[in-house]
Amino acid sequence: MALIVQKYGGTSVGDTERMKNVARRCIAAQAAGHDVVVVVSAMSGETNRLLKLVSQITDRPNEREQDVVVATGEQVSIGLVALAIQAQGAKATSFLGHQVQIVTDSTFAKARIKRIEAERIVEALKQKHIVVVAGFQGQDEQGNVTTLGRGGSDTTAVALAAALKADACEIYTDVDGVYTTDPNVCPAARKLDRISYEEMLELASLGAKVLQIRSVEFAMKYKVPLWVKSSFSDDPGTLVCEEDKSMENVVVSGIAYEKNEAKLAISGVPDMPGVAAKIFGILDAQNIVVDLIVQTASRDGKTDVSFTVGKTDLTKAREAVEQVAREIKAGGVETDSDVAKISIVGVGMRNHSGVAAKMFQVLSQEGINIQVISTSEIKVSCLVQSKYTELAVRALHTAFGLDKPTTVG
Amino acid sequence: MALIVQKYGGTSVGDTERMKNVARRCIAAQAAGHDVVVVVSAMSGETNRLLKLVSQITDRPNEREQDVVVATGEQVSIGLVALAIQAQGAKATSFLGHQVQIVTDSTFAKARIKRIEAERIVEALKQKHIVVVAGFQGQDEQGNVTTLGRGGSDTTAVALAAALKADACEIYTDVDGVYTTDPNVCPAARKLDRISYEEMLELASLGAKVLQIRSVEFAMKYKVPLWVKSSFSDDPGTLVCEEDKSMENVVVSGIAYEKNEAKLAISGVPDMPGVAAKIFGILDAQNIVVDLIVQTASRDGKTDVSFTVGKTDLTKAREAVEQVAREIKAGGVETDSDVAKISIVGVGMRNHSGVAAKMFQVLSQEGINIQVISTSEIKVSCLVQSKYTELAVRALHTAFGLDKPTTVG
Repeated sequence: MALIVQKYGGTSVGDTERMKNVARRCIAAQAAGHDVVVVVSAMSGETNRLLKLVSQITDRPNEREQDVVVATGEQVSIGLVALAIQAQGAKATSFLGHQVQIVTDSTFAKARIKRIEAERIVEALKQKHIVVVAGFQGQDEQGNVTTLGRGGSDTTAVALAAALKADACEIYTDVDGVYTTDPNVCPAARKLDRISYEEMLELASLGAKVLQIRSVEFAMKYKVPLWVKSSFSDDPGTLVCEEDKSMENVVVSGIAYEKNEAKLAISGVPDMPGVAAKIFGILDAQNIVVDLIVQTASRDGKTDVSFTVGKTDLTKAREAVEQVAREIKAGGVETDSDVAKISIVGVGMRNHSGVAAKMFQVLSQEGINIQVISTSEIKVSCLVQSKYTELAVRALHTAFGLDKPTTVG
Repeated sequence: MALIVQKYGGTSVGDTERMKNVARRCIAAQAAGHDVVVVVSAMSGETNRLLKLVSQITDRPNEREQDVVVATGEQVSIGLVALAIQAQGAKATSFLGHQVQIVTDSTFAKARIKRIEAERIVEALKQKHIVVVAGFQGQDEQGNVTTLGRGGSDTTAVALAAALKADACEIYTDVDGVYTTDPNVCPAARKLDRISYEEMLELASLGAKVLQIRSVEFAMKYKVPLWVKSSFSDDPGTLVCEEDKSMENVVVSGIAYEKNEAKLAISGVPDMPGVAAKIFGILDAQNIVVDLIVQTASRDGKTDVSFTVGKTDLTKAREAVEQVAREIKAGGVETDSDVAKISIVGVGMRNHSGVAAKMFQVLSQEGINIQVISTSEIKVSCLVQSKYTELAVRALHTAFGLDKPTTVG
């Protein structure tokens, strides 16, 4: 007998019929001899409906009150899913964040879980109840309602699995696992049976939007085996777990792309201490997240600095950077939002040389110019012109041996 | 400076524009120098939307889980109203039932308030916040979400006013006060400036659906002055308060009617001890509320027993009563759902004789036959054929001097 935490996203509980399907899956897991805790999101579209009401009131909502409003989406789901389980003859009890309790910090709208006191859940499981917990929400030390940010239900599930020392955490979604790349872009994409936490972190943060990145960090930290499965099929899905020897034989596990970044380039930056700190300090002060950063070699005491930010931050970033450029007497500031970031990820890179070189060669063969390059231990990213995204992904997918056997054969 | 509790119902917060109007009223009360606590209901239609989702899952919902779902309606409202107040430049904080805390018993779907611990409210008021509290909901001793039943937000407001020792509790609705009778039935109906708690209780329970009956009981018990006002006008409304000398001069304060009852008559009931207990015991066991009861004088050791129940309980009541009738060897059971109960209410009746006689005379003059009569200290009720409802109400309204001066003169 095992303790399993299952998490169902918004599409899986999108209407009452789908909730009945979720109930069937929970009951099947219990019938197989397991203790079952199920974390649910708001019905798809509900969070947006609530945010629209907020936007009708004000453009700049106080986040404490906004959290009070949006947390209701998950509350509706847990009550309905508990009722659906009961209607099918099993015992069920729902718990809200503050009832569990899931204690967070007070950063409304993107709170972080500090600790979980799961006594009420343990008690209910002992009485053979299927426990239905609201995802996305918690309570701070002062008793205020908090939410964990978009996709926070994944984090709730993994954190609960860690707190309960669950044997597995199953994330149910509308895809049947983690793929080598986006199947919409590359028909040869293959579903992965296993992937390491670190690779998943790189793929998630790079745009393979299957799992919220914080939930993967949590799972890695507490060594929670994480399954990504479809709530509409019986496919075993993908296991996200600790790296083992066999994984190192695979050089590249997946290929990600990201089209929501824009590039800024500052030319003629005086090459002296403190200049980079000044540029990126002002961006940080405005909560603008910077991704790739490249500085060219100094020539005549001047360098060029390029970096990428999220497209929605581009205007704000440009204004800030232009001001700094004037202060430090740099040349002009240029922006380009017609870019895409292509990344190859794999723990096997650690033990294989020439991976980056091979990537550059493949792109070059396709006539794709590389604007910015960034590498880490298990990842190589290249910024290219946006129109080459699909071509680059498909070429790399084939070159690194990721294509489906049938396609290759 | 006074402490005022205001309550706004579903139509008053029916959309975000109306919520902004509520915010204006709260801020105006604060600007007039008062501490303001505002209790809000779910947006009109929202509770029904949530109950419909529940009904799509199951016909027989567990009430604990149903309460989890329906309590979200008020949660959305408090967040949005708090945001609307903030958007207009005042300080506001929202509180849920469990945050206040409003502690109830565990009778889900119709819980009763046991106590209120309002420290967080007092603290927020000290900091000049307008405090926005979710109506209708509470938390039991085990930390479960509970709801107080339809119209429960009125009770929340009055209970808060009592706990905070507020100077007044203002119930805002879509009518501008309590009327002598239903203006839709009787165009001569007048708005009352004042009415006693006891009269309001009789009028509310008899179908003048302005205030939830439990909220009036609460107000009477804790001597909370209760104003019924319109959220769409500046009319001073009606004050529901303790009876004073001047009220006794008015013999009849209001006239109520109720069309949702049905009559059952059992003929040839053996006139012996325990028979009535048997009949009404079985109805009570099935949670059927019995209203008017009449037993005719015994003749040949047999009597006839008539009583009324809610129309929705008629089938269930008939089946139960027919079984008892066979057991006690009574004659037949007859039912009539084509009836209406007309009631005159007034604390002045205590000191005036002949009020009931006058009522019978007025009905007789209009050719209306009285089927069942019931009297209390401040009320006389008659059951008549349903088609006479409007005629009876108008005739009594005129006869007891309740018509508007303009209409009379």
